[in-house]
Amino acid sequence: MDQTPPLQDLPHQHVVFTDGLALECGVALAEITVAYRTYGTLNAARSNAVLVCHALTGDQYVAETHPITGKPGWWDAIVGPGLPLDTDRFFVICANVLGGCMGSTGPRSLRPGLDTPWGIEFPPVTIRDMVRAQKRLIEHLGIARLFAVIGGSMGGMQVLQWAADYPDAVFAALPIASAAYHSAQNIAFHEVGRQAIFADPEWHGGRYWAAGTIPARGLAVARMCAHITYLSEQALARKFGRRLQGAPKTAGEAISLFGDMFEVESYLQHQGSTFVRRFDANAYLTITRAMDYFDLAADHGGDLATAFRGSPTRFLLVSFTSDWLFPTAESRSIARSLNRAGANVSFVEIPSDKGHDAFLLDEPDFHRTLAGFLAGCAVHAKL
Amino acid sequence: MDQTPPLQDLPHQHVVFTDGLALECGVALAEITVAYRTYGTLNAARSNAVLVCHALTGDQYVAETHPITGKPGWWDAIVGPGLPLDTDRFFVICANVLGGCMGSTGPRSLRPGLDTPWGIEFPPVTIRDMVRAQKRLIEHLGIARLFAVIGGSMGGMQVLQWAADYPDAVFAALPIASAAYHSAQNIAFHEVGRQAIFADPEWHGGRYWAAGTIPARGLAVARMCAHITYLSEQALARKFGRRLQGAPKTAGEAISLFGDMFEVESYLQHQGSTFVRRFDANAYLTITRAMDYFDLAADHGGDLATAFRGSPTRFLLVSFTSDWLFPTAESRSIARSLNRAGANVSFVEIPSDKGHDAFLLDEPDFHRTLAGFLAGCAVHAKL
Repeated sequence: MDQTPPLQDLPHQHVVFTDGLALECGVALAEITVAYRTYGTLNAARSNAVLVCHALTGDQYVAETHPITGKPGWWDAIVGPGLPLDTDRFFVICANVLGGCMGSTGPRSLRPGLDTPWGIEFPPVTIRDMVRAQKRLIEHLGIARLFAVIGGSMGGMQVLQWAADYPDAVFAALPIASAAYHSAQNIAFHEVGRQAIFADPEWHGGRYWAAGTIPARGLAVARMCAHITYLSEQALARKFGRRLQGAPKTAGEAISLFGDMFEVESYLQHQGSTFVRRFDANAYLTITRAMDYFDLAADHGGDLATAFRGSPTRFLLVSFTSDWLFPTAESRSIARSLNRAGANVSFVEIPSDKGHDAFLLDEPDFHRTLAGFLAGCAVHAKL
Repeated sequence: MDQTPPLQDLPHQHVVFTDGLALECGVALAEITVAYRTYGTLNAARSNAVLVCHALTGDQYVAETHPITGKPGWWDAIVGPGLPLDTDRFFVICANVLGGCMGSTGPRSLRPGLDTPWGIEFPPVTIRDMVRAQKRLIEHLGIARLFAVIGGSMGGMQVLQWAADYPDAVFAALPIASAAYHSAQNIAFHEVGRQAIFADPEWHGGRYWAAGTIPARGLAVARMCAHITYLSEQALARKFGRRLQGAPKTAGEAISLFGDMFEVESYLQHQGSTFVRRFDANAYLTITRAMDYFDLAADHGGDLATAFRGSPTRFLLVSFTSDWLFPTAESRSIARSLNRAGANVSFVEIPSDKGHDAFLLDEPDFHRTLAGFLAGCAVHAKL
């Protein structure tokens, strides 16, 4: 793999909160920046705002060309005119998470008063910290109550945290392909990725920016490993099966020594090498750690229902049959807790063979489910 | 992680075949060594021999203390006096696979006429090559027909290859938790491991032995990733859940920066760091590649039944409910092909929440199934 240069610094749309944020870990950030994008128009009553929460490697470029990759927005099948999150009707907001690397305060940000980035010394953030930064943005935009908060995977964790912490600010909550805690298996896969980053010779103890380099190979291995967990066995079999292709001439010696390679290997290597051009290794560590530590029930005396007792929020939980990273059982468990809490909850399991990534893909049943639920909520909200 | 010294060279019990072996890739090895262990006594009729085929990271030390790790044999719950593979009754043989690193010819072996090991230049071997080396050993031991050939995971691939290539030399074949081809998902996980090895600064293009080092961190990451696939989500949840422990003082700075660690992380790191003391990275590449290329149906015109048409062998297929690496569907598919071929086949799915590793663990139903099937075969074989 070629050495990849440090990430570009792009002028992301953002807001700076100069009064800072006290993190759950005890560290107070003196000021925070929240980078975000919006789509559609906020109505006069400020009642049509939908907050989209992105997943581990997502960002705020939901429904427009990505400024680094040049690819379409990661949810442009969901967010846009006439789509389930109809931008002719809703004001859609998405913020880069705290700890991320696309403009919000994170390990790539310069330390206050210094001309060096936080890097590995960036304090650990939690899902709750991410949500608190988003809440500041929402208040800044003059919105007291969000019509909906929606997100898949880690985005769904944020949705649950929003509903638990700010029930009166969330009319509808849609955690998609998510869970109320990160499982031992999920933590284990994250740990493999982290160890791959630590093992990279360009890691430099997390201070790779000082050496003008990045731990590209380790981060690529982390991405490859994670990517497998986002797909189902059936999806991999359907897309690639056991088809061979000639090893690319640009591949490293070690690869070509094996002669032909399987298409699935080439695909994963591509996933790894393109990822490192847009993502920061320290941000990857920070965000995976936030997911690992997420356990909403544990924060409420061990009973998830306690987090939602008396909640006025309307919930839609969605899972996908072939998602083995955030399996249906975890959404079902949340639905049971919400029922015990007396909350208003719908739960839909969508048949799909696309694995966890189904929430990002063209799944008509899923899209119809979202549109239908939001239409019903809009009636109740008198939108 | 501390730098781990190169593997010890141990005096393994072995036989040398000075007439060599022509590999499927076209390379002829001028001579081959097969390291092996036996348990029990070969009877006068030479009719009570059972060949055990080991898995990817297994070796010939089936039922005795391992000479490097000091741990019990990897199948000492199965092989021994009064156990399913009863060494009071059967003569049990296990050979280190061709391409391995415990005494059989492989990347750690010296190149003929040179004082340097093959390393990365060791030719690719196939499951069939491994079986052909084992066949040489069996002939050397004066055994015309094996009472049984048994193995789990990659061992099961060898069992299938044995039954396909030498039907008259295999009275009973027991492929456990295995498949007739390696799936795209399994290839993908192997590729993550290989890329982690290639990314290690001590990889040295596969010539790490010349630098007196080993790519310990990359190999450890490969092992960690693979190890997750050997367990079920339920097993990880039961064994570790989300329990935290203090970060060990010996851990690298990057780990301790996160404060507490999850028990599952500590466990995986231990699995990785102990593995590199007993396993060679080039052997890991060679063997994972052999598994990836295994596709028994493709070698028989695309129809697995063709491989077994007219087979006199009695088959027992065993799968485990929570094994997602070699799921029941793959054993069932083999059973269907064997039925179409008119072969004598039993198929048992064992309920277990222990994942792929169940075949190595204390699973009474599994052990009873093996014992029962072998007892029946012994009657038919007039043993």
